[in-house]
Amino acid sequence: MNNKVSQGIMLTDQYQFTMTQLYYKMGLHYTPVQFEHFFRSYPDYGSHKAGYCINAGLECLLNWMDNSIFGDEEINYLKSQTGNMGTRVFSNDFLDWLRNHGNFNSIDIYSIPEGRVVHPGVPLNIVQGPLGMSQILESSLLNKLNYQILIATKAARIKEAARGQPILEFGLRRGHDTGVNAGVRAALIGGADFTSNAGISHVLGYLPKGTHAHSMVQLFITLGEGEIGAFRSYADLYPDDCLLLVDTINTLESGVPNAIKVFEGLKRKGHKPVGIRLDSGDLAYLSIQCARMLDKAGFSDTKIVLSNQLDELVILQILAQIEQEAPKYGIDADILIKRLVYGVGTRLITSGGSSALDGVYKLTSVFENGSWVPAIKLSDSTAKTLNPGRKSVWRFYDNRGKSTADLITLEDENPLEATSIVMHHPSDHTKIRVLKREDFSRAEPLLVDVLNGGKLVYDLPTIDTMREWKQRDMKMLDSGVKRIMNPHIYHVSLSDKLWNMRERLINSYK
Amino acid sequence: MNNKVSQGIMLTDQYQFTMTQLYYKMGLHYTPVQFEHFFRSYPDYGSHKAGYCINAGLECLLNWMDNSIFGDEEINYLKSQTGNMGTRVFSNDFLDWLRNHGNFNSIDIYSIPEGRVVHPGVPLNIVQGPLGMSQILESSLLNKLNYQILIATKAARIKEAARGQPILEFGLRRGHDTGVNAGVRAALIGGADFTSNAGISHVLGYLPKGTHAHSMVQLFITLGEGEIGAFRSYADLYPDDCLLLVDTINTLESGVPNAIKVFEGLKRKGHKPVGIRLDSGDLAYLSIQCARMLDKAGFSDTKIVLSNQLDELVILQILAQIEQEAPKYGIDADILIKRLVYGVGTRLITSGGSSALDGVYKLTSVFENGSWVPAIKLSDSTAKTLNPGRKSVWRFYDNRGKSTADLITLEDENPLEATSIVMHHPSDHTKIRVLKREDFSRAEPLLVDVLNGGKLVYDLPTIDTMREWKQRDMKMLDSGVKRIMNPHIYHVSLSDKLWNMRERLINSYK
Repeated sequence: MNNKVSQGIMLTDQYQFTMTQLYYKMGLHYTPVQFEHFFRSYPDYGSHKAGYCINAGLECLLNWMDNSIFGDEEINYLKSQTGNMGTRVFSNDFLDWLRNHGNFNSIDIYSIPEGRVVHPGVPLNIVQGPLGMSQILESSLLNKLNYQILIATKAARIKEAARGQPILEFGLRRGHDTGVNAGVRAALIGGADFTSNAGISHVLGYLPKGTHAHSMVQLFITLGEGEIGAFRSYADLYPDDCLLLVDTINTLESGVPNAIKVFEGLKRKGHKPVGIRLDSGDLAYLSIQCARMLDKAGFSDTKIVLSNQLDELVILQILAQIEQEAPKYGIDADILIKRLVYGVGTRLITSGGSSALDGVYKLTSVFENGSWVPAIKLSDSTAKTLNPGRKSVWRFYDNRGKSTADLITLEDENPLEATSIVMHHPSDHTKIRVLKREDFSRAEPLLVDVLNGGKLVYDLPTIDTMREWKQRDMKMLDSGVKRIMNPHIYHVSLSDKLWNMRERLINSYK
Repeated sequence: MNNKVSQGIMLTDQYQFTMTQLYYKMGLHYTPVQFEHFFRSYPDYGSHKAGYCINAGLECLLNWMDNSIFGDEEINYLKSQTGNMGTRVFSNDFLDWLRNHGNFNSIDIYSIPEGRVVHPGVPLNIVQGPLGMSQILESSLLNKLNYQILIATKAARIKEAARGQPILEFGLRRGHDTGVNAGVRAALIGGADFTSNAGISHVLGYLPKGTHAHSMVQLFITLGEGEIGAFRSYADLYPDDCLLLVDTINTLESGVPNAIKVFEGLKRKGHKPVGIRLDSGDLAYLSIQCARMLDKAGFSDTKIVLSNQLDELVILQILAQIEQEAPKYGIDADILIKRLVYGVGTRLITSGGSSALDGVYKLTSVFENGSWVPAIKLSDSTAKTLNPGRKSVWRFYDNRGKSTADLITLEDENPLEATSIVMHHPSDHTKIRVLKREDFSRAEPLLVDVLNGGKLVYDLPTIDTMREWKQRDMKMLDSGVKRIMNPHIYHVSLSDKLWNMRERLINSYK
């Protein structure tokens, strides 16, 4: 089912082809246009909400564009399609054009790099090119980018909640078929350190991580060798990588005492046990008790890996509980927190509570009679009215070096040339902020040139580099914006020129 | 990134390989075992909850098993892996074994067919085979099956809420990368009639469906030809497939009047316009008003397609509102409801509100010294304690022909031989139901033989056949179980023999 055809150029919505045939028939298919990719709102997980997103997915989109062409099978399928009256939907001349010219070789893309912190309404990717193929790009672009931004964001939140401790991505069994691979990549950009998924680890050049399953302990119990038999066999084979899952029978009465016995054996032979994993029960209480037992047995440097339906909110609560209760048991909460590792599966890979990002791809400009004409889509709600025209994006940093606002301007504006910058709220006309030159230390244009006439003019960063960019951007975010619940709202503003142009266009339709 | 290696045998969790190496080293890799795939609870969408699930995904799993082998790249990657001390994780003898024998040729699978209504705790798939490869199968089995069951279930609920009206799957842009293809397949099994996704339509042999985007209308507006220009051009090219998106400017003041003008032109030329699509605003109110306008203009047989963040709950409310308000405007609610079509995207393909099914794969039996020994995993909560042993599943139908309970028995039990059947609640020991022979009309074994020694011994049904099975099973469900909110709980029970065996095993560990 996941063959080449279903993952290539045909991984798109049917209407892209019917619309493009219309443009072809009218001679509009080479009309230069601009589309913008942006999302309307941060993921809202119900009980909590994001105050920032992490951009991701671009490299995967570029790979898809590179590998997606109309071959025989694609053309024959389109040729076979019939409408309500049984006549063919697509004509031969159009299909010939698709076959010979249906590629992305004339497309320009300007993007905010992967790993950067991004906000709603800001163009993350601007696509400029001939109408036909720019339109056909829509569905796959959204498919490739929206999911990865969603997961990179979730991973960043989980990493924040875990106070930077290691995060292992464990979501393969609950992810959406092969889509998990894209999710793992995004998780590695946003906050996961490693994944249990072997295939994508190989592709991305990471080592996969894992412990063992309950089934291994069950097997040894059934064979009459008990939990201790399972632990001993595992330790014998992996003496320097020995991480034991201790909750198959009873964590405190069986699992941890058995693990300690095995760790003592390893120690005698000169090996350093790695630690234990807890996968059920009250993880805060159990990690305190396990730490006590491990410390007492002389294994205070072993890790405690927590898993079981974790997300940023659960981790936040586990850590709050540990801080409150650990001292009662003579355990230093900070030391315990620094030995924790988190295995995060379902709620990371599916972005539990908010399983889709509302990213859209909207026509903003059309080149006509020698100049760019802004395109608008009106809407019942001002917040959904489109920002027309060709644009740039600037990020302003205040005098503490913190990012204070993203400003969307028309392409030919340089906000730094003005002595003060008028910033409009994107939908509320009463909200205007004026930033004076002395109020900010730096302004940074966020979009970079990625594709020029289909050619890559951008050094694709490694995932490690994206992680550095993410770290740097996160440091520059106000801590209120990073709050897990009820975050402070980051300012995304429109320039005076863009605001006025939109107002003029809206009024011309009223 | 989604290359062959990341989608083949390596689409698994690393611990499957480390555990299997342990079994290999201990000579246990050929020990016959049984694993069961089941889910613990129905999807809970927060504001509402499912009372049944639709089984799906098996054929995709079988395809994956068929195409997944350890080739050079896989083996070399495993060979390159090192542990904490820099030594190799996998030894040459184990890797040679994987290379030569790491396939699913000795696996048996018994399954409940795709399309059938299924319930929590019931084994949907029983895998029997040598420990090594049965263990390695775990992660991909869960990845292939859990997501499809989730989406087939969501689609069935949406179809129910829509009272059987056509459902178009529109979720590509918000789905999880290439995982959407599996989701579309599941949606087509569970309740969607068509999808907009061209590639998977091709693979599965369906025609993709679609209208046009707002961008098409925006383009014509920008070119000075207005919404009417867009509609006219579209109608000229697709006179017999003309479905117009009417909300780019203003649905009632611009979109529908323009659509009617174009429909009148089509009618004069002998064509039958298909209808309109509404993608924003109050869809209940707007569909009533659109119906009035279309009826008045003589287009009472055109469809009204609704889209925009739909799910079963939104559709339920739209229909309730139509029933209440349509008569006030002289519109027959039933007639209006029967001309509605639903384009459902994000919340179908990502199962909004419940983005993962908690399906698990658990070791239940080990073959030792000539007989099957049940395996158990204890747990702090009785509800999570495993049902051990080799099993069968029976569905009982009452005298109205409605399904009344699923009974899990040991493999060698035939409940029909008893005069009355004792049914235990799966976790609450106080809840026992006794079914007498005269209380039921029929008992049906649900599991069928699928793989025997890796060979397919099952006629894979077409999606149309699965849809028929689903329809039949849905008709046999009590309407209380099908309720969108607070459904009645369907009985899943354990036989007396299975219950007593589990009790004995639990007590032997206490």
